Amino acid sequence: MTSLARPHIAITMGDPAGIGPELCLRLFAHAHTKDLCVPIVLGDASILARVSQRLGLKMPASVISPAQPSRALRELSEPTVVDLHAIDEPAGIEPGRVSATTGRAAFNYIEHSIEAALSGDVDAVVTGPIHKEALRAAGVPFPGHTEIYAARTEARRACMALTCPDLTCTFVTVHVGYRDVPRLLSVQRVLDVIGLTAAFVRRMQSREPRLAVCGLNPHAGEHGLFGDREEERIIVPAIEAARAQGLTIDGPLPPDTAFLPARRRETDAFVCMYHDQGHIPLKALAFDQAVNVTLGLPIIRTSVDHGTALDIAWQGKANPTSLFEAVRIAAALAAPGPGGLP
Amino acid sequence: MTSLARPHIAITMGDPAGIGPELCLRLFAHAHTKDLCVPIVLGDASILARVSQRLGLKMPASVISPAQPSRALRELSEPTVVDLHAIDEPAGIEPGRVSATTGRAAFNYIEHSIEAALSGDVDAVVTGPIHKEALRAAGVPFPGHTEIYAARTEARRACMALTCPDLTCTFVTVHVGYRDVPRLLSVQRVLDVIGLTAAFVRRMQSREPRLAVCGLNPHAGEHGLFGDREEERIIVPAIEAARAQGLTIDGPLPPDTAFLPARRRETDAFVCMYHDQGHIPLKALAFDQAVNVTLGLPIIRTSVDHGTALDIAWQGKANPTSLFEAVRIAAALAAPGPGGLP
Repeated sequence: MTSLARPHIAITMGDPAGIGPELCLRLFAHAHTKDLCVPIVLGDASILARVSQRLGLKMPASVISPAQPSRALRELSEPTVVDLHAIDEPAGIEPGRVSATTGRAAFNYIEHSIEAALSGDVDAVVTGPIHKEALRAAGVPFPGHTEIYAARTEARRACMALTCPDLTCTFVTVHVGYRDVPRLLSVQRVLDVIGLTAAFVRRMQSREPRLAVCGLNPHAGEHGLFGDREEERIIVPAIEAARAQGLTIDGPLPPDTAFLPARRRETDAFVCMYHDQGHIPLKALAFDQAVNVTLGLPIIRTSVDHGTALDIAWQGKANPTSLFEAVRIAAALAAPGPGGLP
Repeated sequence: MTSLARPHIAITMGDPAGIGPELCLRLFAHAHTKDLCVPIVLGDASILARVSQRLGLKMPASVISPAQPSRALRELSEPTVVDLHAIDEPAGIEPGRVSATTGRAAFNYIEHSIEAALSGDVDAVVTGPIHKEALRAAGVPFPGHTEIYAARTEARRACMALTCPDLTCTFVTVHVGYRDVPRLLSVQRVLDVIGLTAAFVRRMQSREPRLAVCGLNPHAGEHGLFGDREEERIIVPAIEAARAQGLTIDGPLPPDTAFLPARRRETDAFVCMYHDQGHIPLKALAFDQAVNVTLGLPIIRTSVDHGTALDIAWQGKANPTSLFEAVRIAAALAAPGPGGLP
């Protein structure tokens, strides 16, 4: 495959004190990476070099400065680090200790990735793990990646998808408190997420999706026995509106039986009402393999599905499977093909 | 094993229009049942006979009337049906069609089982699947078995446990709407459920339990970032109080990573805040094998972990594994041994 045919993928290094740096080095070393894409890590080369030395993992030969003209990214054909110098004193960074400094740096990588993708200098963005408290300490007013990318790309209807070979979930709400979920549900929002989910499955599988929508309450409310009839008031009308558009959708399903093996086999994606409704089965079934995709953006963005794992940072123990999978899916979404992006 | 050593276990037939009747017949036919216990089904013999004929499953030779003195139960040594005649016109009952009549009958079986257990005529109760809407149509003011047994036995601090070989969960709240959960959490309630859980694990495993408690919010609130600090205000104080009593407890855990394989291996039971938090992973991992146990009652009560499955009722397709497991665990809890009942 020529470099022209391979998508250019920006990978943010994630929080410098977490497992992000070593995952980036493992990605460079992974045999399949160069076939899939031109990987371009946005981060601090000094941190990568320290981790590289500590763990005996190779640094790529190509390290460039962001001061070079942005077209330079498009002309790259080898694995590259774009050294953003986001950290003033790299020697002061210790593995496992996040701070306002590491949060600010992680946010800097993200901002550069958004610029690069919006300007077309890269075809997709894959994000490494960030630490929400470090972001907050740095004064970043977003709870997570999904919200940053949605706001900065001015996406009107974005949502998170989490996918592994066995199960794909999308989320009507994500990083909000348990008690805030009911008031964030609306017919329009559920319908939007159904639409984004359908477009994503079409893109990945090139055929009409079979979708399922979970209820909010135990037993999907059992016809009003539990809860405030959120199923009847919000979820059912959204499902009916989506069916009127020609979509094949089952639901609202009782959440606890939604993810049984037989149901998983006949469903391409599950629309979930809240974070743990979909994260619990996905992580129980496929921890370390799942990939996070933000649907509804004008750019392609996938991410690892795990955190910064501070307790094992810079120790060479981190499992890179989720990052490899995130790059694989970003490359698949970036490839020319039928259907539009969700 | 002599009949004296085997516990006498009452099994309620469940909703007559569901899969309960055929599961009872399969239990009678199961080779291990007679070694484990003296099974005594409380139900309608006419319904069992119809299902028996339709599916070619044998009826037990011993069918008795409840009018016989209650000591009669204790003297049984063979599998027996106690014919409660709860349905006036058995021929009018159709598989898959629940009604006030079937709900009333199912509740009648339950009431008899409670009497038999409280009076010591049986050693444990195992319940077949009931239908909540049928119960409601019959004017029964309880959302499920757990609540009926807690109220009728005047248990002050009962909770549901769900268990399979791979995972045991207990529940601070169960059959309530999603939005009602936060206001039902209290330090005392969480502490009570931790105590009931510890006693259950001790009884089943004869050693000190290793427990984990889940948070309520995504990422267990991430130190107040999501939610109303339910973790700090309610769950942490309960965990600390339990630790002060000498218990080994981890938590509050982020709910989505609580059930990963490594964590499951090192945890005897997970205390969950709401129904789907524990039901989703348990059913995804072990549908048809899980058993429901009510902790904190003065009697032993276990149950199948599935519903009435109206779509396949009386067709011979229902999987009896959960009922076999429920009987096995009831027999284990009823056996003389160290430790008290939770």
